[in-house]
Amino acid sequence: MKENNPRIKLYIACSLDGFIARKGGSVDWLTEYENSSETDYGYSEFYASIGTVLIGRKTYEQVLDFGVWPYGEKKTYVFTRQKEPLRREKNVEFVSGNVGEFVRRLKENTDENIWLVGGSQLIRVFLEEDLVQDMIVFVVPVILGSGIPLFDRIGKEVRLRMIDTERYESGLVKLEYEIEGRHKKIANHKRKDIQKFG
Amino acid sequence: MKENNPRIKLYIACSLDGFIARKGGSVDWLTEYENSSETDYGYSEFYASIGTVLIGRKTYEQVLDFGVWPYGEKKTYVFTRQKEPLRREKNVEFVSGNVGEFVRRLKENTDENIWLVGGSQLIRVFLEEDLVQDMIVFVVPVILGSGIPLFDRIGKEVRLRMIDTERYESGLVKLEYEIEGRHKKIANHKRKDIQKFG
Repeated sequence: MKENNPRIKLYIACSLDGFIARKGGSVDWLTEYENSSETDYGYSEFYASIGTVLIGRKTYEQVLDFGVWPYGEKKTYVFTRQKEPLRREKNVEFVSGNVGEFVRRLKENTDENIWLVGGSQLIRVFLEEDLVQDMIVFVVPVILGSGIPLFDRIGKEVRLRMIDTERYESGLVKLEYEIEGRHKKIANHKRKDIQKFG
Repeated sequence: MKENNPRIKLYIACSLDGFIARKGGSVDWLTEYENSSETDYGYSEFYASIGTVLIGRKTYEQVLDFGVWPYGEKKTYVFTRQKEPLRREKNVEFVSGNVGEFVRRLKENTDENIWLVGGSQLIRVFLEEDLVQDMIVFVVPVILGSGIPLFDRIGKEVRLRMIDTERYESGLVKLEYEIEGRHKKIANHKRKDIQKFG
């Protein structure tokens, strides 16, 4: 028996108009917040709490462009439909095929929580397939006007439970939600039936 | 001399993925929050503080559909490019032509703040033409997946100053921003020059 049922967590920053990057992938507008001397927005604590990093191919290439691979201590899976080989960083594996099936097996084989880094396309798949449990979104005080959306017209309605907010000196606001999963609802519903007839 | 320089305020609710209404204009997902017995999210206070309501034609028609016209005590201007006559509620006037020019004259003729109700198209024009000073956005704990966006790819970058956040029992979070206007930046820049050379 595993001690802990790992949770998949989105932990990401976006502009007030919901963009995680400019059109070409640039996150230059985030730099002034990343280098804050006052706070790391809980990043160290969060990073220490997760065992695995999940990342889409485009975001992977974007992060590679930054120069230093930042997730070397964590097992990282890069989701890709490309045949062309990609540069492979430390602890990185490439994944194709059924996302839901992969995630089910991954969760069976780890006790530690999992970080869904992004980007837009992978987040969409994860939300549509009910694979995310927690969402920590940092709202940056800027309207970018255009870019890559955090939520790219998700093909379903997702109800959330507000867990925590925090406001930082810099103007960033953390919004932390749990996803009210369908499985949970079904379980509650069953419990009610038992009470009703039991 | 006027005592108070009126401010234009956006005061609006949106889903976490940034939609103010479903595709057809429905705001059924907001109903459970509007009828809260615990709080009105500061609405009464806000409503009492404004003297004028600005609203786009589509949103006006949507509000008319609700049955009871809610802004009767306030002077309301409906922005429209339509020739067809619209039903005219109490204190309502229809406006066409240059938005910036209209707003300049409006601000010269009132001491009270102005509520920019929406919708998407009007908000876009107001942000692009630097006509908004305050933004109070209530983030509703739901991902709708599709709908009418609060910020419909605004054609410019807008920097904001975080003023206040508030988290409500229901899961709504208020994000209150001031817009860091261009005029202000230029003024500061000039002041620096004076110090530099003065």
